[in-house]
Amino acid sequence: MGPKCIWTNARVVTGASGTDAETLEIAVEDGRITEVGPDLDRSGAEVVNCEGRLLTPAFIDCHTHLVFGGDRTTEFEMRLEGSSYEDIARAGGGIASSMRNTRQRDVETLVREALPRLDALLSEGVSTVEIKSGYGLSIEDELKMLRAARRLAEVRPVRIRTTWLAAHAMPPEFDGSKADYIAEVAIRGLELAHAEGLVDAVDAFCEGIAFSAEEIAPLFDTADALGLPVKLHTEQLSRSGGTALAAKHKALSVDHFEYAAEDEVAAIAASGTVAVLLPGAFYFLRETRLPPVAALRDAGVPMALATDCNPGTSPVSSLLLTMNMGAVLFRMTVAECLAGVTVNAARALGLTDAGQIAPGMSADFAIWNAGTVAQLVGRAGLNPLHIRVYKGEIQGV
Amino acid sequence: MGPKCIWTNARVVTGASGTDAETLEIAVEDGRITEVGPDLDRSGAEVVNCEGRLLTPAFIDCHTHLVFGGDRTTEFEMRLEGSSYEDIARAGGGIASSMRNTRQRDVETLVREALPRLDALLSEGVSTVEIKSGYGLSIEDELKMLRAARRLAEVRPVRIRTTWLAAHAMPPEFDGSKADYIAEVAIRGLELAHAEGLVDAVDAFCEGIAFSAEEIAPLFDTADALGLPVKLHTEQLSRSGGTALAAKHKALSVDHFEYAAEDEVAAIAASGTVAVLLPGAFYFLRETRLPPVAALRDAGVPMALATDCNPGTSPVSSLLLTMNMGAVLFRMTVAECLAGVTVNAARALGLTDAGQIAPGMSADFAIWNAGTVAQLVGRAGLNPLHIRVYKGEIQGV
Ligand SMILES: [Zn+2]
Ligand SMILES: [Zn+2]
Repeated sequence: MGPKCIWTNARVVTGASGTDAETLEIAVEDGRITEVGPDLDRSGAEVVNCEGRLLTPAFIDCHTHLVFGGDRTTEFEMRLEGSSYEDIARAGGGIASSMRNTRQRDVETLVREALPRLDALLSEGVSTVEIKSGYGLSIEDELKMLRAARRLAEVRPVRIRTTWLAAHAMPPEFDGSKADYIAEVAIRGLELAHAEGLVDAVDAFCEGIAFSAEEIAPLFDTADALGLPVKLHTEQLSRSGGTALAAKHKALSVDHFEYAAEDEVAAIAASGTVAVLLPGAFYFLRETRLPPVAALRDAGVPMALATDCNPGTSPVSSLLLTMNMGAVLFRMTVAECLAGVTVNAARALGLTDAGQIAPGMSADFAIWNAGTVAQLVGRAGLNPLHIRVYKGEIQGV
Repeated sequence: MGPKCIWTNARVVTGASGTDAETLEIAVEDGRITEVGPDLDRSGAEVVNCEGRLLTPAFIDCHTHLVFGGDRTTEFEMRLEGSSYEDIARAGGGIASSMRNTRQRDVETLVREALPRLDALLSEGVSTVEIKSGYGLSIEDELKMLRAARRLAEVRPVRIRTTWLAAHAMPPEFDGSKADYIAEVAIRGLELAHAEGLVDAVDAFCEGIAFSAEEIAPLFDTADALGLPVKLHTEQLSRSGGTALAAKHKALSVDHFEYAAEDEVAAIAASGTVAVLLPGAFYFLRETRLPPVAALRDAGVPMALATDCNPGTSPVSSLLLTMNMGAVLFRMTVAECLAGVTVNAARALGLTDAGQIAPGMSADFAIWNAGTVAQLVGRAGLNPLHIRVYKGEIQGV
């Protein structure tokens, strides 16, 4: 926030025009971009010289499970030594392990353990992180997760968008049907969480091992009634059929989408839904079924990329690496990878004032020691961030 | 260097015993480990309390092409937009592009451009980096590359091992056969480079598109005569047959090795050669042929992991990510991934005093904000390094 400032001598990629960089000036007032152009009026303004560096919109990680207790790298080690997923589940591993560890922790502990992951994202120029609940699996523990997510935005300069994902898995102790769980925990908890101001969107996991579209439908009806947008994990491990439900509810996004076919692509093209692709999970699970990138491109469906940061199937906390995987594994172009973590990621969160360099947008920039966007996407393990700017303020790196 | 120092309260993974951590103390004098044990004599020693953190040997990246001019991310972008490798080669891209850019630069420019890559490695606890020539492809330009590599060890606290790789590709202007190039450039240049103290090992690229084992043989004979150990890029894109030559010369390592079969594994088991596996190149090239990890394991062949950091096929500058790819893509165990960047990487470079926490070894440690080695290997994009210690001295991170 504060007085007028003009950022000069930056090679700007606005996010609305592929990867071309143009030498432009950006005027910022009270944390918002007021003007973008080749030669702005500097009277009364502080000037920051970007010394010819590349400037992009700050990145947006639009799908994470960043808040959780414990970690599951011991299971990673066991699997490499020959244990099966079933062995590990029998030994209390998998999502049940994250649930137990999450339930055991209080808000401050969850925040403390999430910070290294959040800081890793911020160090690569991220301004905005979506965080889902889904490891509490009881009303009180799901609320606790979203309180921790909200708290992260108080201890770091970052925009957090919260998503209610109680319909992630059935908790082992629950005595009832999946429909009962949706009614008694997912829906009842959503109403309480919404009343507490904890919810920006509602999500569910539509898959044979989780919930069916029919089971999720009443939850999405409740979201509609509360005026909350929906998202859906769907078509990840099988053609689970959640996309039609998501499209009917004009979902912000469908996420994963590897098993989607023509009908699903057409449905979300019609509903204006973003396809959020998650190459980290594809990589860690050694999947071979690729999401239908060419069909999405042809249908004009906006594609986003996100880390899916979680303790089990995608322990990834780098959006630069995620962009690289989007290109290498999914054959997305460099321009699509950039749009996937800026303009389309904003859309997947329902944000209308972030993800682009344009008047009216929040002044969230990443300024890079790099010459081109291809240098950001085409390398792995190199972080050329010079500085991160959030709401017009330079942040420590 | 300096007076006696004792590192206490560290959970030490020595590198010689899998991934188990034991609370041990480490005595260091004049940059070397003098004693390791549960309760050392502290009289007259400075004490550094590691506060219960995980301590491993510092990492060793035993195969890189870290020094080069320019970058080839524009080609990465073009390929994703539909250009073929042939299109790009016709447009002057590929290795010819790196050759031109490398020839154009002087030593100081090569050093300056290599530093971000080197610093990325060091930031993850690396003490030792192997660097190959191979983009000069003339005697003077190959010498220049190794002078730049040596210079890096003067401007950063790191051990650099240099490798003569003039037999990397045929330069387009060379007027003669491949055998002529080996004789007139690779061998003649090696003698000059060795006389200048620039060479720690000799390497070549044995592949249909590069040199045959027969063409490489006279170069390896020269290496033998000069008392220099050899290494070989072989069995990467086809079963090129270089392994027998490498084994005959008791090569330190054979590198890539995807297309190796039973005979090749048996040959290097007998010659005591390390198999250096390079998952970054496998990933970037979207290869599907896996190296014979199980056969190497069964034969007791030491396996190393390295970044292969280069501008084209493996623009990777993270050894943590490389370990993760060794596990995820190659199904190496966590213990194998750790040994691959410590004890076995040292062996691939002929180093007898690095890569382990033991008396007589250089005091090169990585101290981590992590509880287990599995946490280092099982996540991507998170760097939990607390401090790097090189020759007994704490280095800025
Ligand atoms: Zn997810
Ligand atoms: Zn190589």
